[in-house]
Amino acid sequence: MEFIVYLAGQIHDDWREKLIKKVEERNLPFTFVSPQTNHERSDNIGEDVLGKQPSNLYKDAAASSINNFRTEVLLQKADIVIALFGEEYRQWNTAMDVSTAISMNKPTIIIRPESLIHPLKELSSKANVTVETVEQALDVLAYIFD
Amino acid sequence: MEFIVYLAGQIHDDWREKLIKKVEERNLPFTFVSPQTNHERSDNIGEDVLGKQPSNLYKDAAASSINNFRTEVLLQKADIVIALFGEEYRQWNTAMDVSTAISMNKPTIIIRPESLIHPLKELSSKANVTVETVEQALDVLAYIFD
Amino acid sequence: MEFIVYLAGQIHDDWREKLIKKVEERNLPFTFVSPQTNHERSDNIGEDVLGKQPSNLYKDAAASSINNFRTEVLLQKADIVIALFGEEYRQWNTAMDVSTAISMNKPTIIIRPESLIHPLKELSSKANVTVETVEQALDVLAYIFD
Amino acid sequence: MEFIVYLAGQIHDDWREKLIKKVEERNLPFTFVSPQTNHERSDNIGEDVLGKQPSNLYKDAAASSINNFRTEVLLQKADIVIALFGEEYRQWNTAMDVSTAISMNKPTIIIRPESLIHPLKELSSKANVTVETVEQALDVLAYIFD
Amino acid sequence: MEFIVYLAGQIHDDWREKLIKKVEERNLPFTFVSPQTNHERSDNIGEDVLGKQPSNLYKDAAASSINNFRTEVLLQKADIVIALFGEEYRQWNTAMDVSTAISMNKPTIIIRPESLIHPLKELSSKANVTVETVEQALDVLAYIFD
Amino acid sequence: MEFIVYLAGQIHDDWREKLIKKVEERNLPFTFVSPQTNHERSDNIGEDVLGKQPSNLYKDAAASSINNFRTEVLLQKADIVIALFGEEYRQWNTAMDVSTAISMNKPTIIIRPESLIHPLKELSSKANVTVETVEQALDVLAYIFD
Amino acid sequence: MEFIVYLAGQIHDDWREKLIKKVEERNLPFTFVSPQTNHERSDNIGEDVLGKQPSNLYKDAAASSINNFRTEVLLQKADIVIALFGEEYRQWNTAMDVSTAISMNKPTIIIRPESLIHPLKELSSKANVTVETVEQALDVLAYIFD
Amino acid sequence: MEFIVYLAGQIHDDWREKLIKKVEERNLPFTFVSPQTNHERSDNIGEDVLGKQPSNLYKDAAASSINNFRTEVLLQKADIVIALFGEEYRQWNTAMDVSTAISMNKPTIIIRPESLIHPLKELSSKANVTVETVEQALDVLAYIFD
Repeated sequence: MEFIVYLAGQIHDDWREKLIKKVEERNLPFTFVSPQTNHERSDNIGEDVLGKQPSNLYKDAAASSINNFRTEVLLQKADIVIALFGEEYRQWNTAMDVSTAISMNKPTIIIRPESLIHPLKELSSKANVTVETVEQALDVLAYIFD
Repeated sequence: MEFIVYLAGQIHDDWREKLIKKVEERNLPFTFVSPQTNHERSDNIGEDVLGKQPSNLYKDAAASSINNFRTEVLLQKADIVIALFGEEYRQWNTAMDVSTAISMNKPTIIIRPESLIHPLKELSSKANVTVETVEQALDVLAYIFD
Repeated sequence: MEFIVYLAGQIHDDWREKLIKKVEERNLPFTFVSPQTNHERSDNIGEDVLGKQPSNLYKDAAASSINNFRTEVLLQKADIVIALFGEEYRQWNTAMDVSTAISMNKPTIIIRPESLIHPLKELSSKANVTVETVEQALDVLAYIFD
Repeated sequence: MEFIVYLAGQIHDDWREKLIKKVEERNLPFTFVSPQTNHERSDNIGEDVLGKQPSNLYKDAAASSINNFRTEVLLQKADIVIALFGEEYRQWNTAMDVSTAISMNKPTIIIRPESLIHPLKELSSKANVTVETVEQALDVLAYIFD
Repeated sequence: MEFIVYLAGQIHDDWREKLIKKVEERNLPFTFVSPQTNHERSDNIGEDVLGKQPSNLYKDAAASSINNFRTEVLLQKADIVIALFGEEYRQWNTAMDVSTAISMNKPTIIIRPESLIHPLKELSSKANVTVETVEQALDVLAYIFD
Repeated sequence: MEFIVYLAGQIHDDWREKLIKKVEERNLPFTFVSPQTNHERSDNIGEDVLGKQPSNLYKDAAASSINNFRTEVLLQKADIVIALFGEEYRQWNTAMDVSTAISMNKPTIIIRPESLIHPLKELSSKANVTVETVEQALDVLAYIFD
Repeated sequence: MEFIVYLAGQIHDDWREKLIKKVEERNLPFTFVSPQTNHERSDNIGEDVLGKQPSNLYKDAAASSINNFRTEVLLQKADIVIALFGEEYRQWNTAMDVSTAISMNKPTIIIRPESLIHPLKELSSKANVTVETVEQALDVLAYIFD
Repeated sequence: MEFIVYLAGQIHDDWREKLIKKVEERNLPFTFVSPQTNHERSDNIGEDVLGKQPSNLYKDAAASSINNFRTEVLLQKADIVIALFGEEYRQWNTAMDVSTAISMNKPTIIIRPESLIHPLKELSSKANVTVETVEQALDVLAYIFD
């Protein structure tokens, strides 16, 4: 039995690589997918495909439709969603992905620092599990095979 | 034919009252529901019902479960969702409510200032319509009866 | 028991008015809703709400998102969908509305002239009933109370 | 991870072969399925299976039910739908397939020439991504693995 | 609180009238709907609407599509389905209606004579309740308000 | 706006009456429905309708199918479910009703004494809100209109 | 791509074996599953598992629950359903299986002799394709790969 | 064709091992998954991952959210659910798992001793099959391949 895990959330550090490395060390049967983590590529994908747009609004509209396409394809394949919220940025994409996952009955884990307990309280309350570190999320994943 | 509209989003100004007043002036058959807009009451509802909790984490957990209960009851009744994002705060609740509404196939309108185009681009791309002002949202609502 | 009927399709003649008038004559408990039938208003609604767009592509994108919002709101309320295809224009909206209605398990009636039997054959095969005239569609509606 | 892509739409040129060839050149893990692209076979399949029908109406009815059977089987297997609209013909099947796919939450890409922007605007607004060329659609597909 | 009850099944005696009369005597808040119970009208409705068909096969196809339209409209409104199987005829419509109702999560009651226990055993096993008489079905209905 | 509340759970004291009385005192727009609360009638309903059964197993099977019919009819109408677990009995029906309600996306409140925290922990974790007293459940209900 | 086909219907001749043999001869990628085709085993399975029941009613109830369990497991795995109605017996199981499959959006083929056109007309109208012989059903299956 | 079976229920004896061993002896293509069967680990998993909690209530809340995460992941993969109720303990988790499985249309088998017929009667009535011994459950599983 193999599980596909979608790693939503912050793209400004290497938390995905750290998690994947530890999963490989423990030899657990998870495959990971994620949004485009190259921020510049993610912002430009609309113009990369469709050409120059009339303004930033339309550049963003073009990019976001392709990013959402990618996310939908991968999220529908996922058995589990893990979302990491960092202290910077508004990360509404992350909130959107985890809310969508919950609505699709995907079991979800939120990782967030202590400083975000209050603003994330309603979203945490809907997720299956909320933890503070990548290691704790890994412990929850590993518990499936415990 | 009556429509119920859930007004998600920012609770720090009186945009809901303004919208509802204009709808009444135009005599349109909409009923509006919304989250708890008294910020303090929303934060304290957990302890108001369940009593003192051991720490802020648990106070927040208690409050958010009751806020989510309220939101679910009202969102399920809603035919339409309008969500307003303001420039302050992270407003992850708002992103959660609108994502949930979209997953439930509720037709949705996002209101956001020009400054939030970029961080909200993926969520805007999933909503039916995105506008910048309450008046524009009202125009879209009114168009149903046009 | 009241039924709401969404009248999809051609907006270039008065078939909706004719149908509604006959239903009223026969005193049947149907309420009718429909897309924006003022063609110009339907094409301009995006710019009417959001202001001038950079080109016709963006004007169309703005209009269509608001037209789709309206259609979704009304289609979700509908118990029955009737779609009329005329001989002119491509009417992909009509095909979209009736396909969406079928996917939502809304009982559907297609009205189309004999000349369109071949190009509409797969869509007809998915609809509940296909007829050639508004009168025949009315007979099918009335049969519910027969 | 393998993805199945249903290629809806125009059967009067070799756009499917071109797309598939390029995907193979780039060694991407997509499997493609499509409607019957032999137009004559598609029109005759009803009589090929059930024998001579009393008129063209019944010949079309017999063919379309078998074409719809095929489409349903393949569409349900698909993870992604790409639909190409050409400038000729009404192609209501294509509009039906892409609308059905959207209702089934299949991520969708529409390919259409600039000349069809206006008549396809509502359908484009519901699809995830709309592009003008097969190459652009391929870029969007490839972005999943970017 | 009002409940709508769809009365599927045999149209060769007056069991529906008997049931409805008793419900009225007990003043219970049920509204009843049913298929076309005029057998001849039900068989002819296709030709009544669409005109003479080339053979009985096509006459039956035309009638059945309109009968199914009617059933779908009414079944979707129903809160409860009661289906009576009589000893004569194959009544595959009845089996279809009750199976569809069960798949739609409509609470269902089957009424069947002792002689049909064996051939109906799998269908009985899926229905909520199976009884032998109209009176017993009425007792089950009334129990909702007990 | 009216809400229907299904009151699942213990039938050995008058907690439903107490809750309903307080709701009436506060003039809140809730309508309450519940399972059969006459224990004897609930146990005998199968034989009351179908006659003497060959043993207690079959008596129970007959009763439970009619009790489940009633519950399904009422639960589908409900907007909200409140379930009270008492200290006595196993109350698997209650656990079944609340689990079913959660799967149907009905917002749910569990009322349970402190002594049942541990055995009910997984069910509590799935419900929206868990409280200890009828008064607290009423506070949560009332918060919808706060 | 592999497809699983559930073969519902008559168990009194070897139509399944004939169909499967021809599919193997044509080397088509279909796997077939079916109900218990040993009539006696199907009737006795309840008592085979649970022991002697008090009467034929309870024997039938026990058997049917296990037969339905088997059918549900296999039907949920199926991509396609083919149902053959023969001229003998009432075969309500077959009508139930094909109606359930249609409600689950499984593409369906009905095979029935000319003599059954009239009693099966509504069910035929809901299935994707209706044919008269096993060979024709095979032609429809094979068309998927045409 | 492989089937995944979730083994819900009592964790105080080795019924799972016995069942799995017999399935292996008969060489049947079932894979089994189950909740955490180490009772202590199940109770402590919240604190094992998240650290010391302020009281038993919060320890239980933390543990249950992770147990529910595990159950959801595995239950969604399951084709079949078997739940064993023993005579001790309240086992509300078991009732929750089997009710959830039924709501998800998973075919279910309940195993319970004769002494539990009465308290489990409504749940039994909703499950596909209820038996008294692990051997009988195995017979039902094996019947799929009979």
